[in-house]
Amino acid sequence: MNYIFSDKISKLQPSAIREILKFTAMPGIISFAAGNPAPEAFPSREVGEISARILEERSIDALQYSITEGYTPLRARMKEYMKKSHAVGREFDELIITSGAQQVMDLTTKALCNEGDTILCESPSFIGSLNSFRSYNVKLEGIPVDSDGMNMEALEQALKTEKNVRFIYTIPNFQNPSGVTMSLEKRKALYALAKQYQVMILEDNPYGDIRFKGEHIEAIKSMDEDGIVVYAGSFSKVLSPGLRVGYAIAPREVIAKLTVCKQVSDVHTNIFAQIIADEFMEHYDFESHLKRIREIYLKKSTLMMQLIDRHLAPKITYQPVEGGLFIWCKLPEAVNMMEFCKNAVQNKVALVPGNAFLIDESEKCSYFRVNFSTPTDDQMIQGMEILGGLVKQL
Amino acid sequence: MNYIFSDKISKLQPSAIREILKFTAMPGIISFAAGNPAPEAFPSREVGEISARILEERSIDALQYSITEGYTPLRARMKEYMKKSHAVGREFDELIITSGAQQVMDLTTKALCNEGDTILCESPSFIGSLNSFRSYNVKLEGIPVDSDGMNMEALEQALKTEKNVRFIYTIPNFQNPSGVTMSLEKRKALYALAKQYQVMILEDNPYGDIRFKGEHIEAIKSMDEDGIVVYAGSFSKVLSPGLRVGYAIAPREVIAKLTVCKQVSDVHTNIFAQIIADEFMEHYDFESHLKRIREIYLKKSTLMMQLIDRHLAPKITYQPVEGGLFIWCKLPEAVNMMEFCKNAVQNKVALVPGNAFLIDESEKCSYFRVNFSTPTDDQMIQGMEILGGLVKQL
Repeated sequence: MNYIFSDKISKLQPSAIREILKFTAMPGIISFAAGNPAPEAFPSREVGEISARILEERSIDALQYSITEGYTPLRARMKEYMKKSHAVGREFDELIITSGAQQVMDLTTKALCNEGDTILCESPSFIGSLNSFRSYNVKLEGIPVDSDGMNMEALEQALKTEKNVRFIYTIPNFQNPSGVTMSLEKRKALYALAKQYQVMILEDNPYGDIRFKGEHIEAIKSMDEDGIVVYAGSFSKVLSPGLRVGYAIAPREVIAKLTVCKQVSDVHTNIFAQIIADEFMEHYDFESHLKRIREIYLKKSTLMMQLIDRHLAPKITYQPVEGGLFIWCKLPEAVNMMEFCKNAVQNKVALVPGNAFLIDESEKCSYFRVNFSTPTDDQMIQGMEILGGLVKQL
Repeated sequence: MNYIFSDKISKLQPSAIREILKFTAMPGIISFAAGNPAPEAFPSREVGEISARILEERSIDALQYSITEGYTPLRARMKEYMKKSHAVGREFDELIITSGAQQVMDLTTKALCNEGDTILCESPSFIGSLNSFRSYNVKLEGIPVDSDGMNMEALEQALKTEKNVRFIYTIPNFQNPSGVTMSLEKRKALYALAKQYQVMILEDNPYGDIRFKGEHIEAIKSMDEDGIVVYAGSFSKVLSPGLRVGYAIAPREVIAKLTVCKQVSDVHTNIFAQIIADEFMEHYDFESHLKRIREIYLKKSTLMMQLIDRHLAPKITYQPVEGGLFIWCKLPEAVNMMEFCKNAVQNKVALVPGNAFLIDESEKCSYFRVNFSTPTDDQMIQGMEILGGLVKQL
């Protein structure tokens, strides 16, 4: 049989970058390439207690079919929590529980975009979201990222010239991969531009809760008086990614369409996991849990930055991070970054080449991404020594 | 803001039928409209034991990110199980774990179909699958269902005349909603036609394991020497639907594309649920569990058919069922079926009007669907008495 695949999917080819990433699963590799939360950040004991209670007292609720919108108590709780803690959500908004925040990108693109429509996004940006957009055969237009977030001149230029722009995608806090946080001024400017050009914003905020330094900046969605922002939240970084529970807060009409899309995609999100998330928020002190996680990541990021300073500076530069899971490192322009990453993996240290995050992967890029949440302290020390040896040879 | 939605989604409008279905959630309603497994069929105690053990011994495995293809031991186990028990899966095949079998329909359509391509499907058929297909803006062409399955003349005619047919969708066992099982002869004929016209088959088999009477008929996928069948299996009816674990077995090239689509859709299926499914298959006697479920459904279906015979016959006719969860009931042609269903719900009994399952919902239809797995015995007795009163008035 000669298999014929859809145009939208045929374009999603495994790239040279993904070929490098394959090596990261090899035994003995120290991986700075992942994006996994630190295992010690999981509230394992609490999830154990909650699960036992659910299956003891109300197993049918956890095992039976449920409704597409999500577990009603969790939806009510998250609406209240996001309103109280983050001023996110107005009368015109609704909330849907999704199978991880990734599904928000998928459903939003499906609901809003025809093939050939345009999405504006930060370049670099999270590859999972970019590929989700690409899988609907849309046109991606990259907007450069300055040290305080998306370049607003470039954004306005794109809004003026690009046709059928359906939404602007942004990760405003500790952006993946750049680590950049968008300033309050730029958030306001972005909102004003979106409103002016009547284009929606997809605000993806997986890392907002893990700011371990500096001052919190309010969400773009908290400014949304006009119903133009779809906000994507996630339990992956604060509870567990394996449970796959995320959510979207958006105007009711938009949530209604996301619900239709979700129903035909996976009916509903695993209900056992939704009840676990709900009971965790109810019975445990979420704020002290967040405090504990932030301390873990502060410690790990501090160590990683110290190691970079010791072994890779001054040839390799980076902007110190105040949250999130990643450090975006820059090689001297003259160095072939891809060769450096290949060399690193051959020496048993996995990095993600920066190209992976570009709108056009074939562009020249001097960056690579380092993750500090997954490796142990020993792995960080050992891995950075190895990279230090390679940097000396440059 | 004036929200503009994609063409593919704008077409998925709430219909008059779904308006009726809204009433089914009203308090005091006896629902024959659901498709939920009987709560007593869930292995609640076993899931409780397994969950406790997983979270005690290896909580990080259950909470951390996992790979898109699915939990490796579960994939290996299901490949072996399906090969041994059902002769399903060849050397050229692979298996992916999905977030319920619904996701197989979603991913397969996304991977194989461009907008405007054609899918041939039984009419009537499962509304969840039909809407999944519709959400990719494909053309659906309905093939009538005889008492022994899809009409092969109509199928061949469609294969001859329809353009860009990408696959044939079938539920060969205890089809939802008709309850019909495709004969072995027709399965062979369907396979031969698909091969001749080089069109793939999507074989959806959620009910195959709950045959409670008669002889098992082999899966179409068991005949697949040519790599043309995508087989969708599910744990929803045999373990739990709330956990959302399903799978697809298909040629390696196809699974590779489904994996790409799944990665950008929800990254991976809830890993805790996948480990639960795997341990359930490993530590408990799956065959005696199936035997126990079949006995539950034999008993419930027998009662429902007795009640139909007592209260609704001879005006209402049906084909006795040997498996699945549904009975497809036919009103006299002269009766307005939609009015009958409205009347029923006003009298506190919810049915699904047959139109819901047609390719063209506006076609005339004399059928309604009755579910016997969700209601209790008392609800069946009471609900059928009420319907009996309505039928007398016809």
